[in-house]
Amino acid sequence: MSLRVGIIGAGPSGMAQLRAFEAARAKGADMPEIVCFEKQSDWGGQWNYSWHTGIDGSGESAHSSMYRHLWSNGPKECLEFSDYTFDEHFGRPISSFPPREVLFDYIAGRVEKSDVRKYIQFNTAVRWVNYDEATEEFTLFSQDVKTGESKTYVFDKLVVSTGHFSTPNIPEFDGINTFPGEVLHAHDFRGAERFGGKRLLMIGSSYSAEDIGMQAHKMGAASITLSYRSGPMGFDWPSTTVERPLVTRFEGTTAHFADGTSGEFDAVIMCTGYLHKYPFLPSDLAVNSPNVLYPGNLYKGVVWQQNTNLFYLGAQDQYYTFNMFDAQAWFARDVMTGKIAMPSAAERAADIQSWLDTQAALADHDAEADFQTDYVRELINATDYPEFDLDAVSTLFKDWMRHKSEDILGYRDKAHRSVITGTMAEIHHTRWINAMDDSLERFLNG
Amino acid sequence: MSLRVGIIGAGPSGMAQLRAFEAARAKGADMPEIVCFEKQSDWGGQWNYSWHTGIDGSGESAHSSMYRHLWSNGPKECLEFSDYTFDEHFGRPISSFPPREVLFDYIAGRVEKSDVRKYIQFNTAVRWVNYDEATEEFTLFSQDVKTGESKTYVFDKLVVSTGHFSTPNIPEFDGINTFPGEVLHAHDFRGAERFGGKRLLMIGSSYSAEDIGMQAHKMGAASITLSYRSGPMGFDWPSTTVERPLVTRFEGTTAHFADGTSGEFDAVIMCTGYLHKYPFLPSDLAVNSPNVLYPGNLYKGVVWQQNTNLFYLGAQDQYYTFNMFDAQAWFARDVMTGKIAMPSAAERAADIQSWLDTQAALADHDAEADFQTDYVRELINATDYPEFDLDAVSTLFKDWMRHKSEDILGYRDKAHRSVITGTMAEIHHTRWINAMDDSLERFLNG
Ligand SMILES: Cc1cc2nc3c(=O)[nH]c(=O)nc-3n(C[C@H](O)[C@H](O)[C@H](O)COP(=O)(O)OP(=O)(O)OC[C@H]3O[C@@H](n4cnc5c(N)ncnc54)[C@H](O)[C@@H]3O)c2cc1C
Ligand SMILES: Cc1cc2nc3c(=O)[nH]c(=O)nc-3n(C[C@H](O)[C@H](O)[C@H](O)COP(=O)(O)OP(=O)(O)OC[C@H]3O[C@@H](n4cnc5c(N)ncnc54)[C@H](O)[C@@H]3O)c2cc1C
Ligand SMILES: NC(=O)c1ccc[n+]([C@@H]2O[C@H](COP(=O)([O-])OP(=O)(O)OC[C@H]3O[C@@H](n4cnc5c(N)ncnc54)[C@H](OP(=O)(O)O)[C@@H]3O)[C@@H](O)[C@H]2O)c1
Ligand SMILES: NC(=O)c1ccc[n+]([C@@H]2O[C@H](COP(=O)([O-])OP(=O)(O)OC[C@H]3O[C@@H](n4cnc5c(N)ncnc54)[C@H](OP(=O)(O)O)[C@@H]3O)[C@@H](O)[C@H]2O)c1
Repeated sequence: MSLRVGIIGAGPSGMAQLRAFEAARAKGADMPEIVCFEKQSDWGGQWNYSWHTGIDGSGESAHSSMYRHLWSNGPKECLEFSDYTFDEHFGRPISSFPPREVLFDYIAGRVEKSDVRKYIQFNTAVRWVNYDEATEEFTLFSQDVKTGESKTYVFDKLVVSTGHFSTPNIPEFDGINTFPGEVLHAHDFRGAERFGGKRLLMIGSSYSAEDIGMQAHKMGAASITLSYRSGPMGFDWPSTTVERPLVTRFEGTTAHFADGTSGEFDAVIMCTGYLHKYPFLPSDLAVNSPNVLYPGNLYKGVVWQQNTNLFYLGAQDQYYTFNMFDAQAWFARDVMTGKIAMPSAAERAADIQSWLDTQAALADHDAEADFQTDYVRELINATDYPEFDLDAVSTLFKDWMRHKSEDILGYRDKAHRSVITGTMAEIHHTRWINAMDDSLERFLNG
Repeated sequence: MSLRVGIIGAGPSGMAQLRAFEAARAKGADMPEIVCFEKQSDWGGQWNYSWHTGIDGSGESAHSSMYRHLWSNGPKECLEFSDYTFDEHFGRPISSFPPREVLFDYIAGRVEKSDVRKYIQFNTAVRWVNYDEATEEFTLFSQDVKTGESKTYVFDKLVVSTGHFSTPNIPEFDGINTFPGEVLHAHDFRGAERFGGKRLLMIGSSYSAEDIGMQAHKMGAASITLSYRSGPMGFDWPSTTVERPLVTRFEGTTAHFADGTSGEFDAVIMCTGYLHKYPFLPSDLAVNSPNVLYPGNLYKGVVWQQNTNLFYLGAQDQYYTFNMFDAQAWFARDVMTGKIAMPSAAERAADIQSWLDTQAALADHDAEADFQTDYVRELINATDYPEFDLDAVSTLFKDWMRHKSEDILGYRDKAHRSVITGTMAEIHHTRWINAMDDSLERFLNG
């Protein structure tokens, strides 16, 4: 009997897993029996934009947290697939910071070429998974989200690639239950048009707070107040934008901050991150971690320590994205097929611990980028995923962070060079601050 | 071994099931082994208000669709428990249309007195259920929503009381994906304060559209447009409010209607009802029905036709609520314990069919109220649930509907008489249109 592999989620990570098997098949390997479950009606995960918030048109939690006017926040040269370049897809240089639709087109383009769509059950949510220690089999219960029809599957190997930027982390604040304005989490933000002229309070001090805040600035918000827990972002913000320590309580439309100041607000956007949430997995199989570069319990960040038939892709916080998911998927594939041997539990534990120790000592963002670079390198060295100059990518990350601190509204206007093709990105036809049309059509044709 | 009973949900229906068993125990019957699963941290179901929308603070879908400034929309005399009256709870007459917090207090008061809280596992969601035909057992997988800890249970009987006004039905409309204003479903509406001065479009023509529309009117909305699919509600609306046929498409902030008219809007509230959604049940055990007074496949509206170990409470559209859930819970209890014998499958099918035939011929709302009255009567006659004058309740429903058509902003100012205690309701200290504080404190103490 051939290997039975279940893959949960057809976002960039699940698509990478399909591509990994397909790449081996193209070289003559046997294809396992694969079923990939995707609760949405199309692939792409976060990149598959939907206007729905909260609960979607099928009565499922809306997955994507992306929004209109979302541009890549890192240079595309840092996430380029080494087996499918931007040059191959677009046939000419494009700028370094494409909008969502353009990156969706890129990731879809690769898997369309490899005829893997047939493995995916769309509109199908995984509801529950059991593992039988005796038979070493997973039993998986899935359900068609439109018809309710349920099915039971048995797998030898299971890949969890459901992402971890979808279930919002929503803290409580005194008095927020009677704040009369709109209160939403970044997960449910779909565009800042309606915040023109409004006084916005954003809670959180990471990517979402920064990007949604600056989109609101573009769309004419009256003021943007960014409230942090650990520390301010400290960018050179436009004059409408201030940073304040954490909200202590709300009273009507007033928010009080830890430094004793207060302000009046029309709307609150919680940019307080996401939960690792696996409502289909028993707790002994589920990652339970904050959003970090190296969650514990995963050998090489991929193989579940207590059950090496279980794999996670993309469970990390992400400097690297698409190419890291590839490296993980190639690694997971080779573990599944036995090409990569599993060391003993003790050796795995020691390896995990050494990564956790290194992570605990990381001094700054530059060190974090190097850390993830080393991680990706180790995976790539273990498989036949096409190598590329990872040190050059790490340098790109550092340039990008420097650009951000120099000009938070201008860093997306910079051009970077592909480490794979050597192609220099185009300087885009429109500066980000002036770009009010985020379509692929407008991006490509000006 | 005693009977093992699982109850999913501790809203008014699940609480009724606990009370039903407790009432039998008080009369000397054996108590089965009961576990009730409730994903929220408290009981009360819809009545357990939360400011959360979409996904809640535990990463679960927010259950309650209720909002600030929600008053009962039917007279409390139509939902009074016949074994726990308003007089017993409040010790004095109160008005006929109490706000949410007051009714929450009433339903919680009854079960607090019966010491049934110990049967409930709070913060515990049911993830999946299997039924084994051979052993006639349900296997149920639950999960602590805070810790992720999962458990497996086995039951002989299963009661589904998870409600069906929680998973929003969200239709698509051309162009809605780029409507620049706020778009929300009634499920995520928490208060109309922020719609003061705004031009609101509400889609739907039932209770939610009516009540949220009139709350927005109270809170000073500039205009309220109600867009219907089947037909207008035809109430004597305030001058700010108009009814239009269905939206055909959106273009920017403009909505176009089927009659060729159009309008500009700041926000869209979809009052398009809810889905029967049971993401924890295989399709052959799950109700699949629109929101009607008699969903098919349920004998006496309670017992699953293909598996008489499975029970549903509150699966109907509701004129009657709390007292109907009681009647159903008492009936389900007596079927589980064998006190009520199950007729053959063919007899049950014929009984279901006769209700469906009658339902199909219902001429108007008055006939619907009579239909549900007959249904509740049949259940009550079959058990020891304390009888009450159901014809008098049906008359109350008809009076209430007449009051609504006479004065949509004033029907809640009327007083009705309890059919159980004979107590005449108090005329409330504040007219509904002027009531801007919906707290229990203000309601009771003026
Ligand atoms: C707002 C936002 C902006 C971002 N911007 C960028 C960016 O500019 N550049 C960048 O490189 N990265 C960005 N990211 C990071 C992004 O998470 C990754 O690029 C990538 O989408 C992660 O891929 P994934 O497949 O691991 O997870 P996801 O993309 O989240 O895909 C997971 C898939 O699993 C499916 N799924 C979930 N549960 C189930 C279930 N029970 N059954 C079946 N299917 C299920 C989902 O429907 C989804 O399709 C952004 C993320 C967010 C939230
Ligand atoms: C906006 C609105 C206003 C209403 N106003 C009135 C009114 O004025 N008067 C009136 O009589 N009725 C009103 N109703 C009707 C209301 O539905 C009933 O009064 C009553 O709440 C139904 O009780 P229930 O127990 O059947 O369902 P619910 O009240 O919905 O309770 C279901 C419970 O199941 C739990 N649950 C769901 N899924 C799971 C799971 N997987 N695992 C564990 N637990 C789960 C939920 O957390 C919830 O506590 C209103 C309903 C809505 C939506
Ligand atoms: N393409 C784009 O432009 C774009 C836009 C948005 C997001 N993204 C991506 O989306 C992913 C998620 O980013 P994110 O910013 O949403 O999440 P994140 O990076 O995990 O940051 C979460 C933020 O929430 C704060 N927080 C958490 N709990 C809090 C609490 N109880 N009170 C106050 N603050 C709290 C954290 O503060 P502490 O620092 O104190 O922990 C942190 O600032 C990233 O991969 C990012 O790149 C991309
Ligand atoms: N206490 C209160 O004041 C209060 C307030 C709100 C709600 N409630 C309760 O909440 C429950 C649910 O009420 P509800 O009004 O939300 O739901 P509902 O009674 O089921 O009504 C759903 C409405 O949505 C419309 N609809 C459905 N799909 C549509 C589509 N694709 N396009 C256009 N219209 C569509 C239906 O139109 P058709 O007629 O064409 O089918 C109907 O008007 C009821 O029990 C109600 O009593 C109480």
